[in-house]
Amino acid sequence: MFKLFTAPGTCALAVHIALEEAAAKHEIAWVDLRSNAQRSPDYLKLNPKGRVPALATPEGVLTETPALLAFIGQSFPDAHLVPASPYEFARLQSVTSYLCSTVHVAHAHRPRGIRWVEAADTEALEAMRRNVPRTMGECFEYIENELFAGPWLMGEQYTVADPYLFTIAGWLESDGVDPSRFPKVLGHTLRMKERPAVARVLAQLPA
Amino acid sequence: MFKLFTAPGTCALAVHIALEEAAAKHEIAWVDLRSNAQRSPDYLKLNPKGRVPALATPEGVLTETPALLAFIGQSFPDAHLVPASPYEFARLQSVTSYLCSTVHVAHAHRPRGIRWVEAADTEALEAMRRNVPRTMGECFEYIENELFAGPWLMGEQYTVADPYLFTIAGWLESDGVDPSRFPKVLGHTLRMKERPAVARVLAQLPA
Ligand SMILES: N[C@@H](CCC(=O)N[C@@H](CS)C(=O)NCC(=O)O)C(=O)O
Ligand SMILES: N[C@@H](CCC(=O)N[C@@H](CS)C(=O)NCC(=O)O)C(=O)O
Repeated sequence: MFKLFTAPGTCALAVHIALEEAAAKHEIAWVDLRSNAQRSPDYLKLNPKGRVPALATPEGVLTETPALLAFIGQSFPDAHLVPASPYEFARLQSVTSYLCSTVHVAHAHRPRGIRWVEAADTEALEAMRRNVPRTMGECFEYIENELFAGPWLMGEQYTVADPYLFTIAGWLESDGVDPSRFPKVLGHTLRMKERPAVARVLAQLPA
Repeated sequence: MFKLFTAPGTCALAVHIALEEAAAKHEIAWVDLRSNAQRSPDYLKLNPKGRVPALATPEGVLTETPALLAFIGQSFPDAHLVPASPYEFARLQSVTSYLCSTVHVAHAHRPRGIRWVEAADTEALEAMRRNVPRTMGECFEYIENELFAGPWLMGEQYTVADPYLFTIAGWLESDGVDPSRFPKVLGHTLRMKERPAVARVLAQLPA
């Protein structure tokens, strides 16, 4: 039994979908980011980073979206959510690592600029925010033109990279990027919503 | 046979060390970041991201440090550079993903702030640079106090996370952080330098 610590609108959605696709027994613990519950002493004991996602497993707590996605895929091989061959697995990991370290980070410069400059430095924060449409746009040009294999992100096989792309693509509009610039990604979002596991997860999101 | 595209002083050093530890047949291609060779048409054909590391394998080119590290570990199981159990492998990946998406990114706000703001915005660039000693210091407090298991980063087993920590810890001084604040990490750096594979790689770095 797993317990996923997550919050609406975050990258943890990818992990939630992966659990549902894998038919992994799990429960959900909603962490209220609006009241900064991720910084409460109890939560910091569980995950000293003060972020979501965190996945409590019988062996211990794991963090970091790419690690959780690969772990769920490997723990439920019948669901075929990660490829078995080392090269294909590495290709998948190149994509999840890029989504995590470049695309997610580009996005975070809008809502979470205070990770990298002082909270009082409103001009620097504004400079970061102003660039997010450009940097997210560039990331999604690369995804659309170079990465996206189709019909799923990695090709014929639906993998844990798909809920991750779906999650981050869901941030485009609020990041000031018109998703219609990226027809493959847009089609992917629509196909994702048709998947029963995805629909089940979206129906669970708190209002 | 692998070919690693790397540059001195970059995160690609971790991959270079991993190849050497795995006794993987490889050659090195030095990419001259000072002349922006990472943005040359030839290199962009190989890696459209315009970054190092990139690893050319018989099956295709792979990018992203955490993906390459896991791939090398899995491709050379006799070197025991990644754990076999899914949970222990995920624990390792939590660490490499954190180093990539949080620690490396914190550092990059000093030399590469123009990834997130306009090159002409010298004040915002300066604001980012000014915060790097703080953010890198916080990351290494977490590494020192929470992550570091000892004698190696993950515990008794030397893994691909070790050259990654070694590489990023090597940036602390130029990032304005005194490494002596982190005795475990400092001891780790010294132990790393005693490993023959590490010494061989360091001896190959161009002047
Ligand atoms: N590298 C981490 C990043 C996790 C992360 O930044 N989570 C955000 C939500 S998308 C968070 O918890 N933010 C709350 C905060 O920064 O206080 C991962 O990929 O899991
Ligand atoms: N997420 C990538 C980041 C790669 C990266 O940023 N590499 C730097 C060197 S440490 C680079 O190539 N910089 C050159 C540039 O930005 O033009 C990884 O972990 O491999």
